[in-house]
Amino acid sequence: MSPVPSTTRQWILDHHPQKDEKPSQFFKLVENPLPGPEELADKNAVIIKPLLLSNDPSQRTWVGAEGSYITVKLGQVMKSWGVGKVVESYKDGFKNGDLVWGMMEWNEYMLFEDPETHYPPGLSKLTEEQARDPGGFIALRLTGLTAYYGLLKCGEATSNDQTIVVSTAAGGTGAMVVQIAKHVLKIPNVIGIAGSEEKMSLIKSLGCDIALNYKSPTFEADLGAATPKGIDLYFDNVGGAMLDMMLRRMRTRGRIVACGAIGSYDNDNSNASVYVKELRRIIMSGVRIQGLNVTHHAADFPNGLRELEGWLREGKVKTLTTVFETGFEGVPVGMERLLSGRNTGKLLTKIVTGGRSVL
Amino acid sequence: MSPVPSTTRQWILDHHPQKDEKPSQFFKLVENPLPGPEELADKNAVIIKPLLLSNDPSQRTWVGAEGSYITVKLGQVMKSWGVGKVVESYKDGFKNGDLVWGMMEWNEYMLFEDPETHYPPGLSKLTEEQARDPGGFIALRLTGLTAYYGLLKCGEATSNDQTIVVSTAAGGTGAMVVQIAKHVLKIPNVIGIAGSEEKMSLIKSLGCDIALNYKSPTFEADLGAATPKGIDLYFDNVGGAMLDMMLRRMRTRGRIVACGAIGSYDNDNSNASVYVKELRRIIMSGVRIQGLNVTHHAADFPNGLRELEGWLREGKVKTLTTVFETGFEGVPVGMERLLSGRNTGKLLTKIVTGGRSVL
Repeated sequence: MSPVPSTTRQWILDHHPQKDEKPSQFFKLVENPLPGPEELADKNAVIIKPLLLSNDPSQRTWVGAEGSYITVKLGQVMKSWGVGKVVESYKDGFKNGDLVWGMMEWNEYMLFEDPETHYPPGLSKLTEEQARDPGGFIALRLTGLTAYYGLLKCGEATSNDQTIVVSTAAGGTGAMVVQIAKHVLKIPNVIGIAGSEEKMSLIKSLGCDIALNYKSPTFEADLGAATPKGIDLYFDNVGGAMLDMMLRRMRTRGRIVACGAIGSYDNDNSNASVYVKELRRIIMSGVRIQGLNVTHHAADFPNGLRELEGWLREGKVKTLTTVFETGFEGVPVGMERLLSGRNTGKLLTKIVTGGRSVL
Repeated sequence: MSPVPSTTRQWILDHHPQKDEKPSQFFKLVENPLPGPEELADKNAVIIKPLLLSNDPSQRTWVGAEGSYITVKLGQVMKSWGVGKVVESYKDGFKNGDLVWGMMEWNEYMLFEDPETHYPPGLSKLTEEQARDPGGFIALRLTGLTAYYGLLKCGEATSNDQTIVVSTAAGGTGAMVVQIAKHVLKIPNVIGIAGSEEKMSLIKSLGCDIALNYKSPTFEADLGAATPKGIDLYFDNVGGAMLDMMLRRMRTRGRIVACGAIGSYDNDNSNASVYVKELRRIIMSGVRIQGLNVTHHAADFPNGLRELEGWLREGKVKTLTTVFETGFEGVPVGMERLLSGRNTGKLLTKIVTGGRSVL
């Protein structure tokens, strides 16, 4: 007997988010039929049970009216990068119990049919090593690679850099940037920015020489004191006023990696999301701002992942995850948690059924 | 008998510019003594008569309260890059009648004493070829090199680029960017932006495939029609809203050269000079903004100038100058003309005495 029921619950996009709306408000839970075994066999299809969903800031842009590099249209099922388990397979190369990585849907049971109609086309099986820690793998695959290509390729960081500043340093990407900067490149002055005492302790334990609290009234003065010779490289996860503040501290020919603007994604006018005022500084100091869209480096991902996995084995870096466990009905709450900025490291939503996980 | 009088008139900075103030308001004409022949001989000094002053947008930043890479303090004599003639020399290597290039002061007679106290340290004699057209030399030396390092080094433009957009294309730098892009790199789609029919005709004659008028109500739509496949490289001389508009049209991994923000220099709050709103686009499309401060390339200037002079001889580029002739008392008016944006090509102020030039 098939373990797959005849229907699946799904979270679909009900409407584009309005200002201050929570994910549980703009997504809607529906139930739809799944194909039966004969149809699945006809289609060489695979049924996957999504188990670990990645919560990423960029997902907020997928559901906006403006569109992004990935778009979820009204009425469509929401997506997350993640890991799922094959529960029924009629396709060569996939067998029941395999853990697979790729774009998951917010479905209890997900039909994977034709790779050509899937974005990105295909799923990959986790290696034995990766399958021992699927959450760590997701962190490495997403925030690890983002940190890797951001810092080393876009930012062209090298051991010659003296001072690197990382915003949201306690987040998944920021935490990895800090560790690579300190323990791989051995940069003398790694400065991390976070918003609580707990996060400041965390980023110091990861390798920050100085941790700054952006909520402090003396933040700009603290930044000045921490960067007496200016900043060689700023890894920007927030944009806006903090980016302007860094522009006032950049060294001649300094480099900025524009990785994210999390503060701005929940704005009712996403066109006016981030105002950078200090263009004059960019010109005077010959500063470079390089936008990072990690998908542009996709062809090199196997190499990047191999190098990161090497650093992980050598103990130079570790993956940090916060796992939010929920039944399927609570999936949008994971996205809420991410946007609230309370978590540290890579946030993952683990779907448990009947109080227990299938992982 | 010395041709040098005992005093010189000077334009000094009276106060930092207030909003909407004209240069004739924030500079003040004064008269001060010059050393006599014995003191000049003691000091191994040279007296130079500034003849051709370069009018550059960046000069507006030299006199602001904020400071810049060159600063003119209150009470100090204003400066301009330019060409002058040696009228009295007590220094080896300089003889009366030599034309010299360097940082001129807004003095009728300028004392050049110790290179170490001069910024930049030293003056250079024009070659015979350069001396035949001192205005063309200034244009090549300033706007030519700015276009050269901006387009080729900061922007990394190559013959593989399909679409390049240049703002203030009828200005000195813009006009040279257009010519290098079209006649040296042979870019298929060179788009220039200007603000009048006359300037649009000019930039088409220089090599623009399409000229757009930014004052037209259909400008953004015209830009869209002119860049159906997006923009590979935008050479930005204005910043602000136009930069945002270009960010909405940039191709994946497109490049922006931040060369100037002329529209913002006359702002009463130079910190808030330029607001870039479209940071999200930089991230999504992996766009790079590279600030251009041409002085960072100074070590390579002899090479750049040699290559530009070669293109000039081959007829691939020409220098465009607008010469404003005035007596010494009208020098600030040249700066006013520049900021009004009426001129085309490189603007120069030629100082004439008693109705005639010494050049």
